[in-house]
Amino acid sequence: MIGIIMGSISDRKVMEQAAEVLNELGVAFEMEIVSAHRTPERMLEYAKTARQRGLKVIVAGAGGAAHLPGMVASLTTLPVIGVPILSSNSIDGWDSVLSILQMPGGVPVATVALNGAKNAGILAAQIIGSSDEKVAARLDAYKELLKEKVAAMNDELKADS
Amino acid sequence: MIGIIMGSISDRKVMEQAAEVLNELGVAFEMEIVSAHRTPERMLEYAKTARQRGLKVIVAGAGGAAHLPGMVASLTTLPVIGVPILSSNSIDGWDSVLSILQMPGGVPVATVALNGAKNAGILAAQIIGSSDEKVAARLDAYKELLKEKVAAMNDELKADS
Amino acid sequence: MIGIIMGSISDRKVMEQAAEVLNELGVAFEMEIVSAHRTPERMLEYAKTARQRGLKVIVAGAGGAAHLPGMVASLTTLPVIGVPILSSNSIDGWDSVLSILQMPGGVPVATVALNGAKNAGILAAQIIGSSDEKVAARLDAYKELLKEKVAAMNDELKADS
Amino acid sequence: MIGIIMGSISDRKVMEQAAEVLNELGVAFEMEIVSAHRTPERMLEYAKTARQRGLKVIVAGAGGAAHLPGMVASLTTLPVIGVPILSSNSIDGWDSVLSILQMPGGVPVATVALNGAKNAGILAAQIIGSSDEKVAARLDAYKELLKEKVAAMNDELKADS
Amino acid sequence: MIGIIMGSISDRKVMEQAAEVLNELGVAFEMEIVSAHRTPERMLEYAKTARQRGLKVIVAGAGGAAHLPGMVASLTTLPVIGVPILSSNSIDGWDSVLSILQMPGGVPVATVALNGAKNAGILAAQIIGSSDEKVAARLDAYKELLKEKVAAMNDELKADS
Amino acid sequence: MIGIIMGSISDRKVMEQAAEVLNELGVAFEMEIVSAHRTPERMLEYAKTARQRGLKVIVAGAGGAAHLPGMVASLTTLPVIGVPILSSNSIDGWDSVLSILQMPGGVPVATVALNGAKNAGILAAQIIGSSDEKVAARLDAYKELLKEKVAAMNDELKADS
Amino acid sequence: MIGIIMGSISDRKVMEQAAEVLNELGVAFEMEIVSAHRTPERMLEYAKTARQRGLKVIVAGAGGAAHLPGMVASLTTLPVIGVPILSSNSIDGWDSVLSILQMPGGVPVATVALNGAKNAGILAAQIIGSSDEKVAARLDAYKELLKEKVAAMNDELKADS
Amino acid sequence: MIGIIMGSISDRKVMEQAAEVLNELGVAFEMEIVSAHRTPERMLEYAKTARQRGLKVIVAGAGGAAHLPGMVASLTTLPVIGVPILSSNSIDGWDSVLSILQMPGGVPVATVALNGAKNAGILAAQIIGSSDEKVAARLDAYKELLKEKVAAMNDELKADS
Repeated sequence: MIGIIMGSISDRKVMEQAAEVLNELGVAFEMEIVSAHRTPERMLEYAKTARQRGLKVIVAGAGGAAHLPGMVASLTTLPVIGVPILSSNSIDGWDSVLSILQMPGGVPVATVALNGAKNAGILAAQIIGSSDEKVAARLDAYKELLKEKVAAMNDELKADS
Repeated sequence: MIGIIMGSISDRKVMEQAAEVLNELGVAFEMEIVSAHRTPERMLEYAKTARQRGLKVIVAGAGGAAHLPGMVASLTTLPVIGVPILSSNSIDGWDSVLSILQMPGGVPVATVALNGAKNAGILAAQIIGSSDEKVAARLDAYKELLKEKVAAMNDELKADS
Repeated sequence: MIGIIMGSISDRKVMEQAAEVLNELGVAFEMEIVSAHRTPERMLEYAKTARQRGLKVIVAGAGGAAHLPGMVASLTTLPVIGVPILSSNSIDGWDSVLSILQMPGGVPVATVALNGAKNAGILAAQIIGSSDEKVAARLDAYKELLKEKVAAMNDELKADS
Repeated sequence: MIGIIMGSISDRKVMEQAAEVLNELGVAFEMEIVSAHRTPERMLEYAKTARQRGLKVIVAGAGGAAHLPGMVASLTTLPVIGVPILSSNSIDGWDSVLSILQMPGGVPVATVALNGAKNAGILAAQIIGSSDEKVAARLDAYKELLKEKVAAMNDELKADS
Repeated sequence: MIGIIMGSISDRKVMEQAAEVLNELGVAFEMEIVSAHRTPERMLEYAKTARQRGLKVIVAGAGGAAHLPGMVASLTTLPVIGVPILSSNSIDGWDSVLSILQMPGGVPVATVALNGAKNAGILAAQIIGSSDEKVAARLDAYKELLKEKVAAMNDELKADS
Repeated sequence: MIGIIMGSISDRKVMEQAAEVLNELGVAFEMEIVSAHRTPERMLEYAKTARQRGLKVIVAGAGGAAHLPGMVASLTTLPVIGVPILSSNSIDGWDSVLSILQMPGGVPVATVALNGAKNAGILAAQIIGSSDEKVAARLDAYKELLKEKVAAMNDELKADS
Repeated sequence: MIGIIMGSISDRKVMEQAAEVLNELGVAFEMEIVSAHRTPERMLEYAKTARQRGLKVIVAGAGGAAHLPGMVASLTTLPVIGVPILSSNSIDGWDSVLSILQMPGGVPVATVALNGAKNAGILAAQIIGSSDEKVAARLDAYKELLKEKVAAMNDELKADS
Repeated sequence: MIGIIMGSISDRKVMEQAAEVLNELGVAFEMEIVSAHRTPERMLEYAKTARQRGLKVIVAGAGGAAHLPGMVASLTTLPVIGVPILSSNSIDGWDSVLSILQMPGGVPVATVALNGAKNAGILAAQIIGSSDEKVAARLDAYKELLKEKVAAMNDELKADS
């Protein structure tokens, strides 16, 4: 089970891309809003009980001064994947990227690209697939799909020219 | 009473500048290491009990993905002053500046300049001085000192040329 | 009484968010346009007489090479909160952020996020609330509201999925 | 088994921090130099055979236009952790950070902080620990150590003042 | 013959500007989608056989963590021109610029401006024209055209004022 | 007469380069420390009386949140040249560059390069030389000197190889 | 006479703001397209004959790798004002700002804000006004107008609230 | 014959890396100081006669507002390789990178990494090698050398551990 959390309902459109790809890859997940700054105690509870509730990986998305992924990582030893989200009034996304990426020694966050929730989902599946052959096989199939898409793009390119 | 906290002993050299100026201005303070990422529960305890322990302002310094000021601000209604610190492996200080400054609506942090602990101390005193005439008077005297220093600099400039 | 000032009528839409939240928190304020670059002498007059006119905190918003907050801070010992505003022809807001944040030692400005006038209002109330129990109580209630909003967001998230 | 790779012997000093922490956490690893730009075919071979050789996670460090982590991720479905390294002639580390972090949809790299090899090692252990109780227990113990270090720092702070 | 490649069909609109200018300059080219991250082995094949297939220059465009130009350059000794493309979710184009430009010593990529595919086409023609008098003559004519366009702009400017 | 001012004695080493080049060009100047943030009223006095005291151009250097050039420009109609200075705790000089350069419409500052006081001096002389033939002739001679230096550099380059 | 030049007709909308304000201030000007990269010899001719044709100041606007202002400055001893223009495919304007501002010692360009052609016009008038009382008087009147605009803004602000 | 030029003797240490690698690859070159800003007419002469003097490629290095590569490219149809150099008082190299890279449509510069003169030399050889089999063969051998260096690094890594 993957836990997907985000700081605000406004992050939903981005974070649902993690859910979609996990669905495609047949990996179970739950999704919830947990705000580091508005519900800090709920966040603490969520992170501290995550492993015993059966979570294997946490995917956390946040924008601006994005403290959710790093704070969750400080409260659990599960791998935490951080998704920097480009929020309104962000300074071009630098704020969320840097406040998720630049964690101090001892408390890592696995950071993906700006708005990269899809990749966060795939990475979560890869972590499961590291010791689960079935998921690994689905990831292999997914990689084949990527190749086929490029082939289809080439057909499109050539058809037009 | 002002609470000065920092994420690591390595922040001490910068943060002691806040202590020094509070000493000059006759404002009491206490100083402690509280790490958002290594002692998150201690941080929660510190922030939630701050007002009842008599603190009026919290000055929090941190580097890199600097979550301490913002997380403390999420746990208290006292004014929190954030000091971005240029740590090793920082990306030129941008990480600590942005992760302290760009707080979401609802949870402000009063951010000062990179390594600006001295100004954090003065700002804490100004907050006290907003309703305390004695501290306000000392701040006026401090402002006069700044003027005198410029006058002395001019004497030095002219003496040499 | 909080003084809210801004460099131009074009900053009004952002700065009114400070006014709104102060209204919600029951803290009195006045609002005025004071331009560092177009009315420097008016600014000097405003800042120097602020304390005797009964102001407790000044909230100053400006864009581009944003000198208003820092110059006001050089002329009063009241706490000054600076709001960097993303103006047209700004370089992504970096100009206003850095010209407000990076004040030299001796003259602090409490800087909030880009366009963060709402947080400037809350911070002003926190400064008042540092020594005023009634305002502190309203800030506690405001914090509870933030939690409730997250709970409502979770209901929305679950209703849709 | 964790595979630690790096683009050049000059990355060694940073990347050995991953090895050290994996040693502390009792997780086996191997270390090798594999250059995306100088030995692209060797890299392809390394990445394509990684899973069958028994690797569970790959930690890849590189500086400048850092293509190693992303290219390895394009050739395996194992989780790949990328360590941006501040190399000479780097533009403040931005080049390695962005060329590792900003991977396109479909091919994630779990990016850690600039020079954050220690965190890469811990993250690799967390991925193992996600389904291995023994490693998880050692990670819990490691987290306790972090707390104790803060306590020791506080003793040092208080002893001096 | 110039080889124009790009990582995705979404790069086509930009990359066709290279094709257009090569058409104007009478230099033959072929165009294809080759993705570093989705078809790494196809890319290897493409780059390693490029010279024997008669290519003289490769123009490669990519966005985000743009590894295509650099990886192709690692697999051929033909000159490779890299076009950084501003993709969606890019951090203002910095990611593609830096991951193409900042190649390590030994493996150059001739980088042009963000979205500068037109200049990539002209540069490819200049490389051909370095030893081909006919193409050089057409480049001289093209330069004359640039001057004439400025003259026409001046006529327009003066007509209106 | 050119007025050279700076915010602090620590700016002196940079600003003396303006003085030196004005000496070389035979243009009179005076030099003084005037701090926008520590002596705002002195600054107002300085700027408002500048023209009647016979100044033709003001050269103002400052670091960090550098308000001196812009504020002086708001108080006089003389041309004001701003020199961004790289101060300690600066964020790579961006703060002083942007707070001098990005002035709002109506109040220009003629900004030169980071630490570019020498060019500020030359620019001041060019302004004088715009209507003073003698100074213009000295600037022509100065330009010849620049050419001769390049010739000397070429001799050095060739002597060594 | 002020010479206003720009690299392309696309810069016209911005550069006409310089013309407008010079009209308001009663300072004569001429306007022309001169491209550093497309008409380098025309540029050389323009700059070298500028003083003898009676120009007193040159205002040069350009975007991207903006070489026009600096190259013109290398060819004349007249003061040259550079206007960085935000062009399409610019990296947020940083390219034009830095390629105009960061001139080497010996060859200054008086740089104004991004798209700051209006201020370039005012600065040109200030340079004339430095030794021309009539223009100086008009600049004083212009400064009064700025104050009146702020007063009008305050009336608007108060009328609405 | 390759022409290597640079704006100042201070660029020599970097630019000699281009000369060295051209020596290794058996490609003839000449080296000279040509300054865009101090010797603009010499630069014009150099660029306009380059092809007839037998040059095939021009490698131009410059720092700060680096106009040399782009201006030379405006005056010749030979391929021009630009080397951004990190000069003193540079803003982290961004100025030279952007003023070389971001050339407008019509006038390309083949930009290499900051201080990347070695790669500029290799790229120049690749351009020659595009139509010269002997140089191409030497470039193949050079690529083999890069592989051998990585093998040697691996031996060193393994010997120590």
